[in-house]
Amino acid sequence: MFMRIDHIAIACHDLEAKIKLFCETFELTVVAREINEEQGVKEAMLKIADGESGSSYIQLLEPLSPDSPVGKFLAKRGEGLHHVAFGVPDVAEAMDKISAKGVRLLDERPRHGSMGSEIAFLHPKDLGGTLTELVQAAAPR
Amino acid sequence: MFMRIDHIAIACHDLEAKIKLFCETFELTVVAREINEEQGVKEAMLKIADGESGSSYIQLLEPLSPDSPVGKFLAKRGEGLHHVAFGVPDVAEAMDKISAKGVRLLDERPRHGSMGSEIAFLHPKDLGGTLTELVQAAAPR
Repeated sequence: MFMRIDHIAIACHDLEAKIKLFCETFELTVVAREINEEQGVKEAMLKIADGESGSSYIQLLEPLSPDSPVGKFLAKRGEGLHHVAFGVPDVAEAMDKISAKGVRLLDERPRHGSMGSEIAFLHPKDLGGTLTELVQAAAPR
Repeated sequence: MFMRIDHIAIACHDLEAKIKLFCETFELTVVAREINEEQGVKEAMLKIADGESGSSYIQLLEPLSPDSPVGKFLAKRGEGLHHVAFGVPDVAEAMDKISAKGVRLLDERPRHGSMGSEIAFLHPKDLGGTLTELVQAAAPR
Protein backbone atom coordinates (compact mmCIF):
# COMPACT_ATOMS: atom_id res chain seq x y z
CA MET A 1 0.00 0.00 0.00
CA PHE A 2 2.78 2.46 0.97
CA MET A 3 5.62 3.10 -1.47
CA ARG A 4 7.58 5.64 0.56
CA ILE A 5 7.51 8.18 3.34
CA ASP A 6 6.57 11.09 1.09
CA HIS A 7 7.11 13.84 3.63
CA ILE A 8 7.08 14.86 7.24
CA ALA A 9 5.44 18.19 7.95
CA ILE A 10 6.66 20.67 10.54
CA ALA A 11 4.38 23.45 11.80
CA CYS A 12 6.07 26.79 12.41
CA HIS A 13 5.33 30.44 13.13
CA ASP A 14 7.84 31.86 10.67
CA LEU A 15 8.08 30.04 7.35
CA GLU A 16 10.94 32.09 5.89
CA ALA A 17 13.09 31.72 9.00
CA LYS A 18 12.54 27.97 9.11
CA ILE A 19 13.26 27.57 5.40
CA LYS A 20 16.59 29.30 6.00
CA LEU A 21 17.33 27.19 9.09
CA PHE A 22 16.55 23.82 7.54
CA CYS A 23 18.13 24.56 4.15
CA GLU A 24 21.34 25.85 5.69
CA THR A 25 21.65 23.23 8.41
CA PHE A 26 20.87 20.22 6.25
CA GLU A 27 22.02 21.47 2.82
CA LEU A 28 18.51 21.23 1.38
CA THR A 29 16.81 23.11 -1.45
CA VAL A 30 13.28 24.49 -1.69
CA VAL A 31 11.55 22.87 -4.65
CA ALA A 32 8.07 24.38 -4.19
CA ARG A 33 6.27 27.11 -2.31
CA GLU A 34 2.50 27.28 -2.17
CA ILE A 35 -0.36 29.00 -0.44
CA ASN A 36 -3.21 26.58 0.20
CA GLU A 37 -6.24 28.66 1.19
CA GLU A 38 -8.38 25.55 1.66
CA GLN A 39 -6.01 24.20 4.30
CA GLY A 40 -5.19 27.65 5.67
CA VAL A 41 -1.43 27.34 5.24
CA LYS A 42 1.51 28.68 3.34
CA GLU A 43 4.12 26.04 2.84
CA ALA A 44 7.46 25.07 1.38
CA MET A 45 8.72 21.68 0.22
CA LEU A 46 12.41 20.94 0.84
CA LYS A 47 13.67 17.98 -1.12
CA ILE A 48 15.32 15.14 0.80
CA ALA A 49 15.83 12.58 -1.96
CA ASP A 50 14.49 11.09 -5.16
CA GLY A 51 13.37 7.48 -5.26
CA GLU A 52 11.93 4.96 -7.66
CA SER A 53 8.37 5.57 -6.50
CA GLY A 54 8.71 9.34 -6.04
CA SER A 55 10.59 11.87 -3.97
CA SER A 56 10.63 12.64 -0.27
CA TYR A 57 10.48 16.02 1.41
CA ILE A 58 10.38 18.07 4.55
CA GLN A 59 7.23 20.21 4.37
CA LEU A 60 7.25 23.43 6.38
CA LEU A 61 3.81 24.85 7.27
CA GLU A 62 2.89 28.32 8.52
CA PRO A 63 -0.78 28.99 9.28
CA LEU A 64 -2.60 31.74 7.41
CA SER A 65 -4.64 32.50 10.52
CA PRO A 66 -4.74 31.48 14.20
CA ASP A 67 -8.08 29.68 13.75
CA SER A 68 -6.82 27.41 10.95
CA PRO A 69 -5.99 23.79 11.86
CA VAL A 70 -2.24 24.50 11.88
CA GLY A 71 -2.81 27.74 13.80
CA LYS A 72 -4.69 25.83 16.49
CA PHE A 73 -2.01 23.15 16.56
CA LEU A 74 0.67 25.79 17.19
CA ALA A 75 -1.37 27.45 19.94
CA LYS A 76 -1.83 24.11 21.70
CA ARG A 77 1.47 22.31 21.12
CA GLY A 78 3.97 24.79 19.76
CA GLU A 79 6.24 24.30 16.78
CA GLY A 80 7.19 20.78 15.74
CA LEU A 81 6.13 17.67 13.88
CA HIS A 82 2.59 18.08 12.56
CA HIS A 83 1.92 15.06 10.36
CA VAL A 84 3.47 12.30 8.27
CA ALA A 85 2.56 11.53 4.66
CA PHE A 86 2.95 8.20 2.90
CA GLY A 87 3.14 7.80 -0.87
CA VAL A 88 0.53 5.50 -2.40
CA PRO A 89 -0.07 4.51 -6.03
CA ASP A 90 -3.79 5.39 -5.92
CA VAL A 91 -5.14 7.56 -3.13
CA ALA A 92 -8.83 6.68 -3.66
CA GLU A 93 -8.04 2.96 -3.53
CA ALA A 94 -5.93 3.39 -0.38
CA MET A 95 -8.76 5.39 1.25
CA ASP A 96 -11.19 2.55 0.56
CA LYS A 97 -8.86 -0.10 1.94
CA ILE A 98 -8.04 1.88 5.10
CA SER A 99 -11.64 2.89 5.72
CA ALA A 100 -12.64 -0.78 5.47
CA LYS A 101 -10.24 -1.49 8.37
CA GLY A 102 -12.23 0.89 10.57
CA VAL A 103 -9.92 3.93 10.49
CA ARG A 104 -11.88 7.12 9.90
CA LEU A 105 -11.01 9.40 7.00
CA LEU A 106 -10.90 13.17 7.50
CA ASP A 107 -11.56 13.63 3.78
CA GLU A 108 -14.51 12.04 2.04
CA ARG A 109 -12.74 12.20 -1.28
CA PRO A 110 -9.21 13.02 -2.50
CA ARG A 111 -8.30 16.70 -2.59
CA HIS A 112 -5.48 18.77 -3.99
CA GLY A 113 -2.18 18.66 -2.10
CA SER A 114 1.28 20.07 -2.66
CA MET A 115 2.88 20.05 -6.10
CA GLY A 116 -0.16 18.76 -7.96
CA SER A 117 -0.66 15.71 -5.75
CA GLU A 118 -3.94 14.12 -4.71
CA ILE A 119 -4.17 13.65 -0.97
CA ALA A 120 -6.38 12.56 1.90
CA PHE A 121 -5.97 12.75 5.66
CA LEU A 122 -6.75 9.97 8.15
CA HIS A 123 -8.13 10.55 11.64
CA PRO A 124 -5.32 10.82 14.21
CA LYS A 125 -7.54 9.44 16.98
CA ASP A 126 -7.70 6.12 15.12
CA LEU A 127 -3.92 6.02 14.57
CA GLY A 128 -2.33 6.55 17.95
CA GLY A 129 -2.49 10.32 17.81
CA THR A 130 -0.66 10.43 14.49
CA LEU A 131 -2.12 12.72 11.84
CA THR A 132 -1.49 10.72 8.68
CA GLU A 133 -1.75 11.80 5.05
CA LEU A 134 -1.93 9.69 1.91
CA VAL A 135 -0.24 11.17 -1.16
CA GLN A 136 -0.61 10.21 -4.78
CA ALA A 137 2.10 12.24 -6.46
CA ALA A 138 1.43 14.08 -9.69
CA ALA A 139 3.21 12.36 -12.57
CA PRO A 140 5.90 13.07 -13.56
CA ARG A 141 7.24 14.42 -10.33
CA MET B 1 23.75 15.01 3.46
CA PHE B 2 20.38 13.22 3.71
CA MET B 3 19.74 10.14 1.57
CA ARG B 4 16.24 9.30 2.76
CA ILE B 5 13.66 9.70 5.48
CA ASP B 6 14.76 6.60 7.41
CA HIS B 7 11.83 6.48 9.81
CA ILE B 8 9.22 8.38 11.71
CA ALA B 9 8.78 7.35 15.31
CA ILE B 10 5.45 7.19 17.11
CA ALA B 11 5.29 7.11 20.92
CA CYS B 12 2.60 4.87 22.39
CA HIS B 13 1.42 3.33 25.66
CA ASP B 14 0.77 -0.14 24.27
CA LEU B 15 3.32 -1.40 21.76
CA GLU B 16 1.59 -4.68 20.91
CA ALA B 17 -1.76 -2.99 20.28
CA LYS B 18 -0.19 -0.37 18.03
CA ILE B 19 1.81 -2.97 16.11
CA LYS B 20 -1.45 -4.76 15.40
CA LEU B 21 -3.24 -1.52 14.43
CA PHE B 22 -0.57 -0.23 12.06
CA CYS B 23 0.24 -3.60 10.49
CA GLU B 24 -3.40 -4.43 9.85
CA THR B 25 -4.46 -0.97 8.69
CA PHE B 26 -1.53 -0.33 6.38
CA GLU B 27 -0.57 -3.90 5.42
CA LEU B 28 2.87 -3.59 7.02
CA THR B 29 5.22 -6.19 8.50
CA VAL B 30 7.35 -6.02 11.65
CA VAL B 31 10.97 -6.50 10.66
CA ALA B 32 12.58 -5.95 14.07
CA ARG B 33 11.73 -5.73 17.76
CA GLU B 34 14.21 -4.47 20.31
CA ILE B 35 14.50 -3.36 23.89
CA ASN B 36 16.88 -0.43 24.21
CA GLU B 37 17.66 -0.01 27.91
CA GLU B 38 19.90 2.98 27.25
CA GLN B 39 17.03 4.89 25.64
CA GLY B 40 14.42 3.41 27.99
CA VAL B 41 12.18 2.03 25.23
CA LYS B 42 10.91 -1.14 23.70
CA GLU B 43 10.30 -0.73 20.02
CA ALA B 44 9.24 -2.26 16.74
CA MET B 45 10.25 -1.38 13.20
CA LEU B 46 7.53 -1.72 10.52
CA LYS B 47 8.92 -1.66 7.02
CA ILE B 48 7.51 0.90 4.59
CA ALA B 49 9.76 0.41 1.58
CA ASP B 50 13.24 -0.44 0.36
CA GLY B 51 15.28 2.11 -1.50
CA GLU B 52 18.68 2.50 -3.12
CA SER B 53 20.19 4.15 -0.06
CA GLY B 54 18.40 1.98 2.52
CA SER B 55 14.92 1.19 3.77
CA SER B 56 12.28 3.31 5.48
CA TYR B 57 10.18 2.41 8.50
CA ILE B 58 7.56 3.37 11.01
CA GLN B 59 9.13 2.95 14.45
CA LEU B 60 6.76 2.35 17.34
CA LEU B 61 8.08 3.25 20.81
CA GLU B 62 6.77 2.26 24.22
CA PRO B 63 8.60 3.60 27.28
CA LEU B 64 10.13 1.18 29.77
CA SER B 65 9.31 3.58 32.61
CA PRO B 66 7.39 6.84 33.13
CA ASP B 67 10.59 8.78 33.85
CA SER B 68 12.27 7.82 30.56
CA PRO B 69 12.33 10.44 27.78
CA VAL B 70 9.48 8.75 25.89
CA GLY B 71 7.56 8.25 29.16
CA LYS B 72 7.80 11.97 29.87
CA PHE B 73 6.79 12.78 26.30
CA LEU B 74 3.64 10.67 26.65
CA ALA B 75 2.75 12.26 30.00
CA LYS B 76 3.09 15.74 28.51
CA ARG B 77 1.76 15.34 24.96
CA GLY B 78 0.03 11.99 24.68
CA GLU B 79 0.54 9.44 21.93
CA GLY B 80 1.73 10.59 18.53
CA LEU B 81 4.71 11.60 16.42
CA HIS B 82 7.86 11.61 18.54
CA HIS B 83 10.76 12.19 16.13
CA VAL B 84 11.93 11.93 12.54
CA ALA B 85 15.12 10.20 11.42
CA PHE B 86 17.10 10.91 8.27
CA GLY B 87 19.49 8.45 6.66
CA VAL B 88 23.06 9.70 6.20
CA PRO B 89 26.11 7.98 4.73
CA ASP B 90 28.32 8.77 7.75
CA VAL B 91 26.76 9.83 11.03
CA ALA B 92 29.96 11.24 12.58
CA GLU B 93 30.58 13.39 9.52
CA ALA B 94 26.96 14.62 9.49
CA MET B 95 27.21 15.47 13.21
CA ASP B 96 30.30 17.59 12.55
CA LYS B 97 28.69 19.44 9.64
CA ILE B 98 25.46 20.13 11.53
CA SER B 99 27.21 21.16 14.73
CA ALA B 100 29.31 23.61 12.72
CA LYS B 101 26.04 25.29 11.62
CA GLY B 102 25.21 26.02 15.26
CA VAL B 103 22.64 23.27 15.88
CA ARG B 104 23.30 21.52 19.19
CA LEU B 105 23.77 17.75 19.31
CA LEU B 106 22.10 15.71 22.04
CA ASP B 107 24.77 13.02 21.59
CA GLU B 108 28.47 13.79 21.79
CA ARG B 109 29.30 10.76 19.69
CA PRO B 110 27.34 8.21 17.64
CA ARG B 111 25.52 5.54 19.61
CA HIS B 112 23.75 2.29 18.83
CA GLY B 113 20.29 2.57 17.26
CA SER B 114 17.77 0.12 15.86
CA MET B 115 18.88 -2.81 13.75
CA GLY B 116 22.60 -2.28 14.17
CA SER B 117 22.56 1.34 13.05
CA GLU B 118 24.72 4.18 14.36
CA ILE B 119 22.65 7.18 15.38
CA ALA B 120 22.73 10.63 16.94
CA PHE B 121 19.99 13.01 18.02
CA LEU B 122 19.88 16.76 17.37
CA HIS B 123 18.43 19.31 19.77
CA PRO B 124 14.75 20.00 19.00
CA LYS B 125 14.99 23.57 20.33
CA ASP B 126 17.39 24.40 17.51
CA LEU B 127 15.17 22.78 14.86
CA GLY B 128 11.73 24.28 15.30
CA GLY B 129 10.66 21.88 18.01
CA THR B 130 11.47 18.86 15.85
CA LEU B 131 13.39 16.06 17.54
CA THR B 132 15.65 14.88 14.72
CA GLU B 133 17.77 11.75 14.48
CA LEU B 134 20.60 10.94 12.11
CA VAL B 135 20.88 7.28 11.08
CA GLN B 136 23.77 5.46 9.48
CA ALA B 137 22.28 2.09 8.65
CA ALA B 138 24.19 -1.10 9.31
CA ALA B 139 25.39 -2.66 6.08
CA PRO B 140 23.91 -4.73 4.56
CA ARG B 141 20.45 -3.80 5.74
